Amino acid sequence: MLVNRRTLRIEWGQCDPAGIVFYPQYFIIFDTSTGWLFERTGLSPRAMRLKYGIVGIPVVDVGATFRAPCRFDDEVIVESQVSEWGRSSFTVRHRILTNGNLALEGFEKRVWAAPHPECAGAIQAQPIPAEIIASLSDPTGVTTVGNKAASEN
Amino acid sequence: MLVNRRTLRIEWGQCDPAGIVFYPQYFIIFDTSTGWLFERTGLSPRAMRLKYGIVGIPVVDVGATFRAPCRFDDEVIVESQVSEWGRSSFTVRHRILTNGNLALEGFEKRVWAAPHPECAGAIQAQPIPAEIIASLSDPTGVTTVGNKAASEN
Amino acid sequence: MLVNRRTLRIEWGQCDPAGIVFYPQYFIIFDTSTGWLFERTGLSPRAMRLKYGIVGIPVVDVGATFRAPCRFDDEVIVESQVSEWGRSSFTVRHRILTNGNLALEGFEKRVWAAPHPECAGAIQAQPIPAEIIASLSDPTGVTTVGNKAASEN
Amino acid sequence: MLVNRRTLRIEWGQCDPAGIVFYPQYFIIFDTSTGWLFERTGLSPRAMRLKYGIVGIPVVDVGATFRAPCRFDDEVIVESQVSEWGRSSFTVRHRILTNGNLALEGFEKRVWAAPHPECAGAIQAQPIPAEIIASLSDPTGVTTVGNKAASEN
Repeated sequence: MLVNRRTLRIEWGQCDPAGIVFYPQYFIIFDTSTGWLFERTGLSPRAMRLKYGIVGIPVVDVGATFRAPCRFDDEVIVESQVSEWGRSSFTVRHRILTNGNLALEGFEKRVWAAPHPECAGAIQAQPIPAEIIASLSDPTGVTTVGNKAASEN
Repeated sequence: MLVNRRTLRIEWGQCDPAGIVFYPQYFIIFDTSTGWLFERTGLSPRAMRLKYGIVGIPVVDVGATFRAPCRFDDEVIVESQVSEWGRSSFTVRHRILTNGNLALEGFEKRVWAAPHPECAGAIQAQPIPAEIIASLSDPTGVTTVGNKAASEN
Repeated sequence: MLVNRRTLRIEWGQCDPAGIVFYPQYFIIFDTSTGWLFERTGLSPRAMRLKYGIVGIPVVDVGATFRAPCRFDDEVIVESQVSEWGRSSFTVRHRILTNGNLALEGFEKRVWAAPHPECAGAIQAQPIPAEIIASLSDPTGVTTVGNKAASEN
Repeated sequence: MLVNRRTLRIEWGQCDPAGIVFYPQYFIIFDTSTGWLFERTGLSPRAMRLKYGIVGIPVVDVGATFRAPCRFDDEVIVESQVSEWGRSSFTVRHRILTNGNLALEGFEKRVWAAPHPECAGAIQAQPIPAEIIASLSDPTGVTTVGNKAASEN
């Protein structure tokens, strides 16, 4: 699978009075990291929504295990990859490392979701396009769907 | 003017490593407090959007002055009122008190905004309905537009 | 077990462009709901830290399953209870309901953590005091450790 | 003055149901942008705290004027610079641009704050070190206090 790596700094406002990251902040990092992983297809999040007529890729199941705290000013590496493809759902695995050690790992199970054809405001799971699967399954990151500069972020 | 008062507790996740509220959190409190002030009209935020065809009341100008920090577990009182009515804009003044002392005060200048009739995605300022002005100008809170139980929150 | 119930309104700033709650926001709700559950012991979060010399109850494992979205202006009920007691860790189960239906459920596994006696900045798990377990295991909520008015929130 | 420029993408979780950035999120961007501006001195936030014995640079006054909305997936440029130096306080001016147009501008007035020598938990304003002023006043960014790679972020 294609692994997307981001280098981030832990910011003051992400930390709590114990001086460590307030844990819901990690899910914000997961969410944006999934966005950047999917950008490796060569499509921005908005372009992907337009091209395939989806409203998004909402989360249905999520979890994380915390091994060591991250602190203000720490530089962390976030590694994200799809760990499992279903027909209309998939699981993204995230690992966050500080100083080469695993601080936490987690997952997001998400659904490829289009507007429901009959029920306004509701969504309906759709089969994930084969080219998206192919692109994010290619460990070299060469296989892209769009032509956006697919730089790591 | 009608003053809406809310009693809140400062939560762990709102505070930073210095043990005090991370200042952008106060603007989240301002935003929700404006919501609860407008609920004193007897209309929920969603009902108000439906009744008047507005997309919301976006902020155009905002500011705050911080006098004393609020800390984890502090009980604070938030007092909110419209301090000025324009034709299609208005200013809400917020004061946050701890132990009877003013911790901070600020304001949000907002616009009564409907979808632009010609430009998709854009908005257009609209005159504020007279009954909304009347309701939020009545210090007793008796003058309501809708019939929702207008309890303080 | 004692179940703590909170009634909350979903606020504008908790929702995303799809009009539903941005999922990391639910973990902020979980975190504050655990705080209010423990307040049913009669001790505020700060008082509990002082009385037992703990730095907090950090999360080591967390998860959630989303069944139906919550939207702006929805009134939700959050039900929180300890579902399992270990020696120095425990699991809090949270359920969020809208209109009587389960929107999501999740858990937080947390540790009763004191400062490490030898390693500055580090923490050490401690046995959970029996009276805390007794108080939060009493479904009537009558068994309190402190004398703070233990109202639901 | 030295201007620090950051290029950011507006993320899904920063936007509200109107599809535009929820305004308190801009203050989180201001806060981190001030952090990166001060990193141009060659000192990380943590190194600066250690070197000068300060607890931080808390905000005392803040404001923003919103001219055009930023939307999900927009690329924005944040320009930050000190606009005024006082003895122990200073003002940082932030401008956020999309597609070359000014979306919003704002300021943060902050204090150079050390722990109060007599009152535990309180802070005391201190004179800003001359070398910090010199470093952030040098438009070329060559004048650094520490030797950290002072790259733009």
